[in-house]
This record gives sequence, C-alpha cells and structure tokens, in this order.
Amino acid sequence: MKRPPAHVSLYRRSLPNFLIPFVSTKGKTLFKGALNEGNMENYFELSEQYVTQARPEDCAVSSLVMILNSLGIDPEKKWKGPWRWFSEDLLSCVDPLADGFSLHQFLQLAVCNKAWAMGYYSSLQQIPKKEEFQCGIHFSSLNYRIASLDTFRIATIAACRQPKFFLTMNYSRKALSQTGEGHYSPIAGYNSEHDMCLILDVARFKYPAYWCPLHMAYKALQPEDPVCKKSRGFILASRSREYYSELCSRQMDTVSLRKIKEPVTRELLQKGHEDLLPIILRLYYDFYEFKPNETQVSAELETVEDFQMDARIETLIKELNPEIPNAKRIVTGIFGKDPKGVCQKYKKYFGLK
Amino acid sequence: MKRPPAHVSLYRRSLPNFLIPFVSTKGKTLFKGALNEGNMENYFELSEQYVTQARPEDCAVSSLVMILNSLGIDPEKKWKGPWRWFSEDLLSCVDPLADGFSLHQFLQLAVCNKAWAMGYYSSLQQIPKKEEFQCGIHFSSLNYRIASLDTFRIATIAACRQPKFFLTMNYSRKALSQTGEGHYSPIAGYNSEHDMCLILDVARFKYPAYWCPLHMAYKALQPEDPVCKKSRGFILASRSREYYSELCSRQMDTVSLRKIKEPVTRELLQKGHEDLLPIILRLYYDFYEFKPNETQVSAELETVEDFQMDARIETLIKELNPEIPNAKRIVTGIFGKDPKGVCQKYKKYFGLK
Repeated sequence: MKRPPAHVSLYRRSLPNFLIPFVSTKGKTLFKGALNEGNMENYFELSEQYVTQARPEDCAVSSLVMILNSLGIDPEKKWKGPWRWFSEDLLSCVDPLADGFSLHQFLQLAVCNKAWAMGYYSSLQQIPKKEEFQCGIHFSSLNYRIASLDTFRIATIAACRQPKFFLTMNYSRKALSQTGEGHYSPIAGYNSEHDMCLILDVARFKYPAYWCPLHMAYKALQPEDPVCKKSRGFILASRSREYYSELCSRQMDTVSLRKIKEPVTRELLQKGHEDLLPIILRLYYDFYEFKPNETQVSAELETVEDFQMDARIETLIKELNPEIPNAKRIVTGIFGKDPKGVCQKYKKYFGLK
Repeated sequence: MKRPPAHVSLYRRSLPNFLIPFVSTKGKTLFKGALNEGNMENYFELSEQYVTQARPEDCAVSSLVMILNSLGIDPEKKWKGPWRWFSEDLLSCVDPLADGFSLHQFLQLAVCNKAWAMGYYSSLQQIPKKEEFQCGIHFSSLNYRIASLDTFRIATIAACRQPKFFLTMNYSRKALSQTGEGHYSPIAGYNSEHDMCLILDVARFKYPAYWCPLHMAYKALQPEDPVCKKSRGFILASRSREYYSELCSRQMDTVSLRKIKEPVTRELLQKGHEDLLPIILRLYYDFYEFKPNETQVSAELETVEDFQMDARIETLIKELNPEIPNAKRIVTGIFGKDPKGVCQKYKKYFGLK
C-alpha cells in the first residue's frame, strides 16, 4: 500500500468483515467464551501493558515492550525520573533495518533484554537450529523452529493458558486484507469454540484490537519478508525455558485439546519437533484429566483411579516415546524441574530412575 | 512523599494488601464476577486504550487521552504521519499548574476536546453549578455536582454498564496507602458482590491496575487538593449528554441495584441532585424488570404483564416526581431523545402530552 500524500490525514481504518473488533458485541462474546475456557490467562498481563507504536517502524519494539513489561523483567536501566521501565528507546543492542525489525532481530532484541525466546518460521526452509550471538558482554543463543498451522495453534493455546508465556506474531497485513505491509503484534487470547485468536494490534491509531480466525492468522505468517527473504512467523517468549517446558500446572479444556491432539502427534513424529514435546505432554496430561495436586501425590498408587490414570499415561507415552530420539533427555529435564515432585511416580514409564 | 535522591532508581512499588492486582488470581476472579454482572461494559474500550503517563504531571492528560480515544472522538489534528489520534501533547487549550491539572482544568480539557463531561467534587462546598468558558473560537460550559459515596457508586455502576460512558477519578494516593500525592486514573469495572472498582492506574511503571474497595476509592476523593483548595472528585464523560440521560438501554443486576436503591432516593430528594435522575430512573426501570425492546413496544398495553409494569412505574414516579422541582423538564428531555419511542407510552405518568 502506497503512503498517502502529505496533505491527507486519516482517522483509523475499518477492519475487514472476518476480523471481529475486541470492543464489539461479538468480540465480547468471544472474549467471555475464551475466558471461560481458560484461554485468556496471558491476556491480563498483556492488556495491562498495551501500548501504541509511536512510528511505522516501531511495531516490533512496541510489541516487545509489552512482552518485557508483562514478564516483569527489570531493565536495570533508568527510564524516566527514578523509574526503571521498558520503553521503545531502551531496547538498544540491535540496529533495525530501514523498515523495522526482522523476526531474527526481534529474537535477538528479546534475548539480549533477558527474555527466553524461541522463533518460529512458518515455511519449510533451511534455518539454523540454534545460533550464538554476542550481546553486550555476554553470549546468548537464538533458537528457531518451523511451525505448521497445528504447531501455531498449540503454541497459541499454550501461551494463552499461562500468565507468563507470550506469543508475538510477525505477519503480513495484506494477508489479513489490511493496509500496510509487515507488522508485529502479540496474541492475548484464544477462543477454541470458534478457533479464533485475539490480536492486540499495537497500531491503535489505525486498527483496533480484534479476533482473527486462527487459520487466517497463520496464513498471514507465511508471506516472505522481502528484506530477509524468509517467511514471517512468530516468537514465543517467557522469563526462562522452564515456562516452555512446564509440565504439571495447567488444565486444558477438551474442546481446545480435540483440535490439536491428532495432528500434533503426527507432526511431532514426522518432523522431529521434539522441543514441543513438553507442551504436548502437558496438554495430554490435562486431556486425560490428570490434574495433579498435593492430595493426589500423597494418595496411594493402588487406588482404582490412580491405576486407570497410570494406564492412560502409559498408553500415551508408548505412543510418543519410541519415535522421538531424545525424548528421554527432555523428559528428564522436565521431571528435574518438577518442584512438587508430582511427576516423580511416572518416571518409570520413561525408563528413568 | 519526598522524591527519592537522584542516584536512586526504582522498579515498581508493591500495592497495599487491600488493593487487589488486576493480574492476580483474586483479581481475575473479581474480573469474571464483574463481567458476569454486566459491570465491565466500558472496560473493553478503556483497556484497548490503556496508556502509561510519560511524566509525573501527566496523569490527568494520560487519563483523558484514554477517555477521548475510547470515545472515538476525532481530534481533527494530525498526530504522527497522516494519522489523527489523541496523545498527551495534542491536548492544548489549558495550561497546567506546576504539579499537574486541577479537576476544574481536567473538565475544561475534556470539554474543549469535544467530550461532554460533568465534574463531581466529593465534599459539600460552594461551587458554580455551571460555568461558561471560552475555548478557542467557541464558548463551552462546565457542569459541576457534589457526590456522596452513594452518588459515586451510582456513577461508577452507570459508567461500567455502558460502553461509551467513562468515569475518571482525581484522588489522593496517600489515602490509598500509596506513595505520591494527587493522581488521576479511569475506573473500568465494578464488582457489585464485593463492592470493588477496577482502577486502570496510568502510572504503570509504578503501580499496576488494581481492584479497590469502593468506599476506599471514595475516601481517596475527599482530601483537599492543596493547589485549588477544593476536595478532589471525579469526572463523568461521554460523547454527548444523551449518554448521561439515556433511559432505555441497559439492564441492571439486582445485586448492584440493591446497593443503591435506598440511599439514592434519599439523597436525590434531600440534596436536589436532579441531574442524576435520568440514571436513577434507568436503574429503577431495570430493577422493575422493564427491559424494553421493539417487541415489547408493539405489544398491547392491556396484557397483564404490561399492566403490572405500568403500575410499578407509576408507583416509582409518584415516589420521585413531586419532590423534584424540574423533574418534568428533565423527563421531557429524556423522552425527547428516545430514538425508538420506547418510552412514549409512559409519558402520561409524567403529565406530558
């Protein structure tokens, strides 16, 4: 879309019909549905940090400012007065391209500002699985994956069901029938009944926040970024890797789960996306109504309920385990970070001591 | 609270225990409760426009920017690039005091930026009922009232139950056991079960958004503003007076209503706050389960339900009408703005043709 001539001035744009404004009656209904499903857990932090991008090229840094402040990361630099706080101009360390930031640069910016982050491209291409880079006085590493629609859906659900785990889209506005080119904004909710996600657009002077069909959002991740010649994609971010692999904390509504169970397993096995295993496992646990708490931990294993639960989990693990080369290593990692020891008794199923 | 020395830097402050963080588990429960009560209707617009005040003296203008953008008012001035949008630096027309804006100035700023607004002081004092002032090329008028706790509660509920009707508090931080002095922030929700309101604090680098017991919020409106020697208070704002006097649009949950019915009537009659009548009437209508829609309008009056409803409304009007000198004028105004003619048939009860 060409820029309007200098004398033109604009007051907002209208959303295309397939995008539902956050503030509309339909939008509120989607919101309530998603809230009741438990798929708005990260909404609260993000909405509390909602900002407007100040310049056309600022969508990436404004989205990242939302993420970093939502994560409660202390920038350890003064912002204004005595206060330490993330604002766009505090995110140094990466020089933007002329038109903004590539997905790679967003990931760099996130990592060198002390977030843990994982980048996902939406198309199959040769990308480094891990890349080291120097940031100030220390080395950090950037992690990449490739995401199908199903992976995108899992990641969206996983993020929306946790308070401190965030997904930022790097997408093509054109693919969503909006004016403009590449854009960044975080996702802050998922309605599984309608398979729609809530995008908190940071260009608030132009488009409001809106609900978008998930497959359309994924479609908008696919066009090539003309500058870096790669597909667009998304970034998962949290304070540490532990959030990514956290196993025993959340419940999954069965509607959401039904949408991801089958294709996920298939993709996981076919493409070797073993880093998604922790999320999948958590979802499966919840699906099988394994909702661990301290009472359950102290309960005897020989009760009928426990037996049935164990049998279900055994089946699940048999289904996943042999096909994935380093499942054992990953599962060890997860169980090692299980603070309440809830998962201890299931170690045997993974061949662990 | 003295300012910290220059070398000190701070990362946020902790809220006192009686204030519940928006993002906390308790906060989410209050949110869901209020949402189900229908007392979060203006939350959606406001949260979509949430901003951080950039300087200590900016709390008033940042709150007003949220309100004006939430109201969808076109500033008719360019902000950045081709876009017209409200930001703090576009709100000219009033010079702030050294430490920020008085309630009077906030009202001026709101009105000269094309909002309709009504100011409420929290203590009995001689204030002009209406004040003319010149703003740019036109004259505008400022309206004032005095609000008891009950009036504050009604106004909060009325605002929270409508999408385009907003309440901004001008309060003392000290009275809420927070550091700092006078402050502005909008209210974006009300939980009637716990009688708490949601304050979207614009100093996000300092305090998060939080739920506050309504009587504590009111207490924080009472201390005198040392500069203008008046109590603090709050401002109701909308696009036009019609929102303020809109009669036939909303339903009220009975829990909320029970809290306000008795004291409101008393106060209305005692203090002559006849401008609140439209809100009260709307609440009463809803309380008596008068939920007008087009089907009801076309229904015959002689049905049992209509008869009962009419009888109830007649009782209500008898209760309110004779005590209030200009009730007739006000009610005429309301009924004249009734676009669907829903209220026409009740004109007779007010002695109107």
